[in-house]
Amino acid sequence: MKVQRLAIIGLGLMGGSLARALRQAQAVAHLSGFDVDPLQRRLAQQRGVVDAAVDSAAAAVTDADLVVLAVPVLHTAEALQSCLPALKANAVVTDVGSTKQSVLADVAAVCGGRAPPWFVAGHPIAGTEKSGVANASADLFRGHRVVLTPHPGQSSAAREMVTRLWLECGARVVEMDPAQHDTIFAATSHLPHLLAYSFVDLLARLDVRGEIFPNAGGGFRDFTRIASSSPETWHDIIRSNAPSVGRLLEQQIGELNEVLAMIKAGRWTELRQLFERARAIREQYLEQIE
Amino acid sequence: MKVQRLAIIGLGLMGGSLARALRQAQAVAHLSGFDVDPLQRRLAQQRGVVDAAVDSAAAAVTDADLVVLAVPVLHTAEALQSCLPALKANAVVTDVGSTKQSVLADVAAVCGGRAPPWFVAGHPIAGTEKSGVANASADLFRGHRVVLTPHPGQSSAAREMVTRLWLECGARVVEMDPAQHDTIFAATSHLPHLLAYSFVDLLARLDVRGEIFPNAGGGFRDFTRIASSSPETWHDIIRSNAPSVGRLLEQQIGELNEVLAMIKAGRWTELRQLFERARAIREQYLEQIE
Repeated sequence: MKVQRLAIIGLGLMGGSLARALRQAQAVAHLSGFDVDPLQRRLAQQRGVVDAAVDSAAAAVTDADLVVLAVPVLHTAEALQSCLPALKANAVVTDVGSTKQSVLADVAAVCGGRAPPWFVAGHPIAGTEKSGVANASADLFRGHRVVLTPHPGQSSAAREMVTRLWLECGARVVEMDPAQHDTIFAATSHLPHLLAYSFVDLLARLDVRGEIFPNAGGGFRDFTRIASSSPETWHDIIRSNAPSVGRLLEQQIGELNEVLAMIKAGRWTELRQLFERARAIREQYLEQIE
Repeated sequence: MKVQRLAIIGLGLMGGSLARALRQAQAVAHLSGFDVDPLQRRLAQQRGVVDAAVDSAAAAVTDADLVVLAVPVLHTAEALQSCLPALKANAVVTDVGSTKQSVLADVAAVCGGRAPPWFVAGHPIAGTEKSGVANASADLFRGHRVVLTPHPGQSSAAREMVTRLWLECGARVVEMDPAQHDTIFAATSHLPHLLAYSFVDLLARLDVRGEIFPNAGGGFRDFTRIASSSPETWHDIIRSNAPSVGRLLEQQIGELNEVLAMIKAGRWTELRQLFERARAIREQYLEQIE
């Protein structure tokens, strides 16, 4: 399969990596891109990430067969809105957002109340804590899972086109209900980000803050890695999945209060059993992690 | 410097790695070791980690110039007790425990009320989530920091001997007050372990638990890595540093309640500012991490 003309709106880590992957696979004849940030546009052009980094979303999507929205998830509606006037009649549009119910609702709102047949909601489970097109990598999606969350009335041809696109990047594609997607990713991804951000923010307010980092090791580095992720991206993700994330954070606080009670009351056997359970679960399922 | 006879009590990841590092550096003429687990003893012998894996702590330390206690931290007193009858008059004893006030108190209790001049409390800031002598590595300590926490009356010759030992492993050595050590490591290491264990334990009780791991990515893997750490080791660490860890966990729960309040009330700008603060701090100090 070869897409004749592909447009990417948002030339950050995700959009840039998708562009690099597709060019490496020679899966696209012409690749145009737009980013609201002139610096990302210039970098994308200079480094050959796209054939043409243009000055507007409308210019990027003119004549495109497939459009990928790779913007922070709360900018989906705005990005789609600026593409709509220039979209070809049979163009397919997809996204890479980490939450899917809000994307489908926002797309429906822009398109007169229903998510259209030509839209394919998607979420590649890949990324790093780094941001920007300068960190884009052709291998970001290789061996990783991409979740599509079909909606009623979606064109199967559109879904197949997007599926083939991700297969060209070396990814695997699965389908999932949008609500189930958001519940699962609140647990696997959104809550850990909140915990990591909150933990690092706490450290900065301790009396010993000056001594924290020189005395931190590899465990600390890995545990806090996701706290270096883009604040804009993560603001949008948490905000657009607030009910699921809020419920789960409440459960996590409950569990931590239980841990605190164990420590205060010296219930050490229970604490050790908790550690044993957690370790056993992680070891058992580790090979399933993408 | 060459130690003539070194004994390691506890042939796990830390003891085994120390043995391998010292042998690689040819810093020890004879290396004996003991572990309460016959399997670790056998592996240590078979793989040449030590010259002699013997059947008791007393047998291991007989004639040793330097003894390293590399046992879970709450086993320090018991390990030292079993060494004492066989220790040479001028032998130096050190440890690798992650908490230092409890070690010094336990050592004092075994030695008649005061930590003796020949004891050197130490903590190498290195490790992995893996356990056992089978995972021991000669490079575990290379480029890492070792914290010594001197006590009143400590022999400076003993401290210098232990310092040189760690330098031979490629580590750097710093000194710190024991109470300050325990406060700092509650923040850099003990609290993150509690958060990671508690998070994984929570996941196992969710309705969507079967879908968690297949939908987890690299961020999840790194964030939860320390939840695969030895439950015995971490039970001992948390228990022996309970006051510091408890206080900090309470602060962390307070911060998470604040995050939850932001989400529930839609205080999105504040949440984003929190993310920005955390990211900026981590990026600023990342190079200081060991």
